[in-house]
This record gives sequence, structure tokens and C-alpha cells, in this order.
Amino acid sequence: MARPKEFDRDAALQAAVNVFCDRGFEGTSTEDLLHAMCISRQSLYDTFGDKRQLYLESLQQYVATSIAEQIRALNSEATVLAGLEAALLAFASKSGKSGTPGCMGIGATCEFGMSDPDVTALIATADKALQASLERRIADGKSSGEISPEVDPRAAAHFIKATFAGIKLAARGGAAVTSLHAIAQMALRSLK
Amino acid sequence: MARPKEFDRDAALQAAVNVFCDRGFEGTSTEDLLHAMCISRQSLYDTFGDKRQLYLESLQQYVATSIAEQIRALNSEATVLAGLEAALLAFASKSGKSGTPGCMGIGATCEFGMSDPDVTALIATADKALQASLERRIADGKSSGEISPEVDPRAAAHFIKATFAGIKLAARGGAAVTSLHAIAQMALRSLK
Repeated sequence: MARPKEFDRDAALQAAVNVFCDRGFEGTSTEDLLHAMCISRQSLYDTFGDKRQLYLESLQQYVATSIAEQIRALNSEATVLAGLEAALLAFASKSGKSGTPGCMGIGATCEFGMSDPDVTALIATADKALQASLERRIADGKSSGEISPEVDPRAAAHFIKATFAGIKLAARGGAAVTSLHAIAQMALRSLK
Repeated sequence: MARPKEFDRDAALQAAVNVFCDRGFEGTSTEDLLHAMCISRQSLYDTFGDKRQLYLESLQQYVATSIAEQIRALNSEATVLAGLEAALLAFASKSGKSGTPGCMGIGATCEFGMSDPDVTALIATADKALQASLERRIADGKSSGEISPEVDPRAAAHFIKATFAGIKLAARGGAAVTSLHAIAQMALRSLK
């Protein structure tokens, strides 16, 4: 009879996500992972496969959670601009909290560019979901008159995603939360 | 009598910059560097020190060149908005050119966050120069009436820097040049 697993799979995966967020793929050693996940080498291989498989599962988990959070915030307010503001400010506040690790999605894009088809596909799927939600909300905002008729929803969605990335990078570089909020507010001005 | 160096130091350094842009610090091996720089291991150590010293010199070279280019574009046009547009569009076009490696500054921020004081100091110096130039031009634009009186030059400068970063990351993730230009144009709307 197989011995029951002695660790919480979800908690171990989350620990791996945190390490990869902070150090990227190349910068993370198997020892770093074992230490953070508090599991044995054999458990890691049995449960998650090798470092690359664990990285891909961590990235999948990270981007799915992040995108769901952003889309939820986007749809949390009665008006479109308030929803966009809520999503950007919450993201800025979270990114700027001291001790918050880097963004695994941005880290993966920096590290791999388009060189790894599995990484590219994972990020493309999440990106597509966020792009579609943003486009829909921005089109709604144009219909309701909140957003300028001159704004193209597709271009504006690309721009808001670039703003999320810019905020995260500014935070990673040490910018204060007030600066991150200012970036978010400037981005919102462009929609009006 | 010392034998004269048999390679072009600047060209070798530029080759190192390109490798680090593409693969980051951890992802680059000494073998990768020797291969790209076309020099011997001994020449590398004699001329550039170890991998970390070469990385720091490459980063210094990269960010100084990039920032100088951005500031030059910013001041290249008669009006402030035209200068900002020129800087953003040139950056977007360059970033979106196929085969362009990643941004070494963004890569360093992703990889190290604030964990390496030498990296942090190098990036902070360049960032300060760009921030000051942007603030000055945006204040000029307010004076001339091109830029809205509601815009705070400091916040707007942070926002434009975040836009540069967002454009670079979108390019690294495979976005088309037209999308990158659209991001730049949306950012400019926020200043008016």
C-alpha cells in the first residue's frame, strides 16, 4: 500500500511559485525549491516531475490566479472607469507592498522571450483572456459615454496591459506605492 | 613587453551586452560569453574580470546608451509632445524589430529586484537622468500649454517610464510593432 503523501500539494506548489517569482528559472536551484517547499527530493520528483515541469505548473498557477484577480477587479464596480481604476490601483498596491516577490509572468517573458513554446503558450492563453475582458469593458465604456469615442478598445486594452507591466516593473525596481498609484491614474486619463 | 590585445574591446563588450540582454545573468555561461565575444578565457579575465564584473560593465554600457538615446529623441523636436512621441515611437519601433534582444535594464530589474546594490545603483543613476529630463520637458509643455495643467510632471514622468517598460515587455512577448505604436499613442493622450 502506498504511503499517504506527507505534505500539502497546494502549499508546496505555492512555495515553488514564490521562489520562481523571486529568482526566475535559471536562478532557482533544486535545493532552493526543496528548502522552500519543505519536501524531499524524491517527493518533488514523484509529485511534480523535474524542475522544468514544476516551473511550468507554477507559471500556469501564477498567471491563472493573477489574471482571475485582475478580471474580478475589473468587473467589481458599477462603472467601467471605476472598474479599471479598481483593477489598476489594487494591482499597484499589491505590487508595491514591501517584500512582495517579482511577477512570475513578467519574469518568464524577460527570461524566455519567445524561445520556449510551452512558456509562450501558457502566457498567451492568460494574455488572451485579459485582453478580451479589457476590450469588452472598454467597448462598454464607449457605449455608455464614459470612455472617449476616439479610443480604440483593442489598442486601449494593449495599453492597459502595458501599464500593468510597467507598474510591476517600477515596483520591482523599488518605486513607492504613491508613484505606482500615480502611474495608474495617468493611464486612466488617456481613456477619457 | 606585453603583447598587444588582439581584439576590439568595444566590440567584445557589445557582444557581451547582447548575450546578457538575451539570457540574463544566471542564464549566461562563461562559455556563452567566450563564444559570442570571440576571445579566449584568459583575455576575458585579463580585460573584463569575472562574469559578474563583465555583467556590471555591460549593464552600465547598455543603460547609459539607452537613456542617452531616449533623452536625445525627447529633445529632438520643436514641441514637447512631438519630442515625447518621437522618443516613444522610436523606442517601440526598435523594440518590436524581430530579432531584437530583450532589454538589459528590465532584465536586470526582473532578475535582481533590489537584491544587488551594484545593479540597483547603476539602474538608479540612469533612471534619475531619464526622470529629470522627462520632468523638465513635461513642465515645459505645461508652460507652453501643450500639456494639461492638471498633469503633475513628476507623476507623468513616472508614467512615461512605465510606458517604456510596458512597450519593451510587450515586444519581448511578441507584440507587433503596430500594437507597440498604439500603446505609445494611448500614453500620449493622457498628457493632453
